[in-house]
Amino acid sequence: MKDIVNIAVIGLGGRGSGMAEIMCKMKDINLIGVCDLHQDRIDEMVDFCVNEAHRPAPFATTDYKEIFKLEGLDTVYVATDWEMHVRISIDSMKAGIPVAMEVGGAYTLDECWELVDTYEETGVWAMMMENCCYDEREMMVHNMARDNVFGKIVYCSGKYAHDLREEVGYGDIEGHYRLRNYLNRNCENYPTHELGPIAKILNINRGNRFTSLVSVCSGSFGMDYYVRHNKELKPSLGDKHFKQTDIVKTFIKTENGETIELTLDTCLPRFYSRDFTVRGLKGLYQGDGDIVYLDKESFRKKEWSQKNFWGRGSRYNKKYGGKLWKETTPEMLEAGHGGMDWFIIRAWIEAVKNDTLPPIDVYDAAAWMSITPLSEKSINEGSSTLEIPDFTRGKYKNREDKAEGRYAID
Amino acid sequence: MKDIVNIAVIGLGGRGSGMAEIMCKMKDINLIGVCDLHQDRIDEMVDFCVNEAHRPAPFATTDYKEIFKLEGLDTVYVATDWEMHVRISIDSMKAGIPVAMEVGGAYTLDECWELVDTYEETGVWAMMMENCCYDEREMMVHNMARDNVFGKIVYCSGKYAHDLREEVGYGDIEGHYRLRNYLNRNCENYPTHELGPIAKILNINRGNRFTSLVSVCSGSFGMDYYVRHNKELKPSLGDKHFKQTDIVKTFIKTENGETIELTLDTCLPRFYSRDFTVRGLKGLYQGDGDIVYLDKESFRKKEWSQKNFWGRGSRYNKKYGGKLWKETTPEMLEAGHGGMDWFIIRAWIEAVKNDTLPPIDVYDAAAWMSITPLSEKSINEGSSTLEIPDFTRGKYKNREDKAEGRYAID
Repeated sequence: MKDIVNIAVIGLGGRGSGMAEIMCKMKDINLIGVCDLHQDRIDEMVDFCVNEAHRPAPFATTDYKEIFKLEGLDTVYVATDWEMHVRISIDSMKAGIPVAMEVGGAYTLDECWELVDTYEETGVWAMMMENCCYDEREMMVHNMARDNVFGKIVYCSGKYAHDLREEVGYGDIEGHYRLRNYLNRNCENYPTHELGPIAKILNINRGNRFTSLVSVCSGSFGMDYYVRHNKELKPSLGDKHFKQTDIVKTFIKTENGETIELTLDTCLPRFYSRDFTVRGLKGLYQGDGDIVYLDKESFRKKEWSQKNFWGRGSRYNKKYGGKLWKETTPEMLEAGHGGMDWFIIRAWIEAVKNDTLPPIDVYDAAAWMSITPLSEKSINEGSSTLEIPDFTRGKYKNREDKAEGRYAID
Repeated sequence: MKDIVNIAVIGLGGRGSGMAEIMCKMKDINLIGVCDLHQDRIDEMVDFCVNEAHRPAPFATTDYKEIFKLEGLDTVYVATDWEMHVRISIDSMKAGIPVAMEVGGAYTLDECWELVDTYEETGVWAMMMENCCYDEREMMVHNMARDNVFGKIVYCSGKYAHDLREEVGYGDIEGHYRLRNYLNRNCENYPTHELGPIAKILNINRGNRFTSLVSVCSGSFGMDYYVRHNKELKPSLGDKHFKQTDIVKTFIKTENGETIELTLDTCLPRFYSRDFTVRGLKGLYQGDGDIVYLDKESFRKKEWSQKNFWGRGSRYNKKYGGKLWKETTPEMLEAGHGGMDWFIIRAWIEAVKNDTLPPIDVYDAAAWMSITPLSEKSINEGSSTLEIPDFTRGKYKNREDKAEGRYAID
């Protein structure tokens, strides 16, 4: 049991620096090291620590391997680009340092296997920082599912539906991983925000597992149109076209017979939505409209007008709301993404302090991230159906190792 | 130009008798013949005509071919089961009688081709009675699309999301086509409610066409669970299981590069929704939530809370609402399905009266209905991608024949 945790942050882009600032608000965290390839980002972060957070200046480097040599380092948080974050996390485990890894899809299945193999060889864990597992509705609906409110669950769906045209369009090819990815790949490139909470409900890697997927894509119009109609954005692109299609849908089957529908929808104008949806034999929760609809509440007489159900989710919060959400402070809620960033940091830090397993482990990370390269292959093969590996090598049937404490997701 | 139209109704189940009752309210329609295989339905309909509508008793028969011999018959409305309605419509055309055919998917591509061939051989038209083409939001969004409010349209989606467990579960195998279909087939069995309005927006068969599809299905749990937990419903089913899966998704590509996503969602508890959705390079309309979201209205600052957009569709009604909907009477609105049944009947009757082409023709019907057998084949082949025939045989590129008048959908 540690009272204070010494951490380092590798990757100081928007996400890394934002999360580091939240961490600096937590009294049981010492930020002792920071790393980025860009010196200006390092300078800004050190300046923030000293002049805004009134903390000691952390050790700073552009070489992430120097971080692992820091004396007293307990854990690392990795928020680099999608290409590097798995590699750095694996190196952290090999150096004996438990690691928190930001979200994003994988590039290859080998990368996913290496994450698992390294954990099994070293006994040092990696946690995936999937904050949406801790968001308010996801936690409430998880509790409702566990209490059998929806009956046996047979279909779940979710989206990463987020207009990223400006973010991708403004990026420069050197610096922004999303731009590189959108120019050169076509796949479900960001599956975990919606898949993470669904996988937890369906007990993936704990009695159940993903077995196969098929992906379908639309045309690629949104990004090209956007960058060509906002002349100030992208002179450097020249005639280059975006390979990433506007909408990618992926259907995953599980061993227990459930179907999961994922949607990537990031290149056209729209409001943000994860549309987190759970369908059971007795009822549903649907993210769009925040709708709960249950057989037992005799809703059928109103079924023709969905307006009757908009916003109904909040009625179930008192009984089923996540316990973490009942103890929020303004500081937590303002920290980032409405509270969930605070919780995911605490989940990681508590696992380090108590030397327990993290709530989202390498098997989860490997299974969730594997959707990206598999979806890419499926699309390249004209929507072929592909097997999803069992990254637990059979252990999912009867696992006993698990996270403990208030941040566990049971 | 006819002032009065003599019609007959073939198929007096729930839909046929309901529509016949609406037709009896229209002073320019004489119902001169009715037909069904069930004598009790015939007796009820004749009784309604005489004692409630105060009209002459129509000729009544259980043999639909007798109907075509009726003197002075101008047109026929066919609302039989899915298995027979195309056959009867083809026979009507062959008998020289223009025909209105209720919606439903086809069983084979041959059936679709025969519909087209018969029209081309006889010059007698068949109209598909897709009432959703005339619903309020569909017409408004159609007008917005035509006015380029959404920019170039690249993705459309829609659902037939309707909890049919009770309807299917209560049906008896002899009498109800849905029960037969749900027991023995697995496909997108009812595509036209959502696909019709989308096809009209995308100019399918008029400059554009469907080129290919792929279908994906969930497991089949909802119906089995329902009939086995409502013991009074289905003793006759014994150990029979439902082949129709809970949710079927179909993705259609068009020659112009648009993607269409269809969802059949009829076996699990839920509210009704067609979730009619149009996505363009400048904005969207989404049925669930009745949301309009446009780049030019600078919504981005509110994008994180979709509640800001719920119900916003109504704001666009004044400018873009269908002209038919601006002249509704209480009688129309109460007639059936909130008004659209009235309009689809009028569209058909006006085409007969004026001897013009119907707004939804055999090419539309064939293309829309072909989705059913193609989706069945795609699913049977593990989500294979299949070509969709061009039922116009190339005429779609440059068609001049078209509907006219206030019910045309331009």
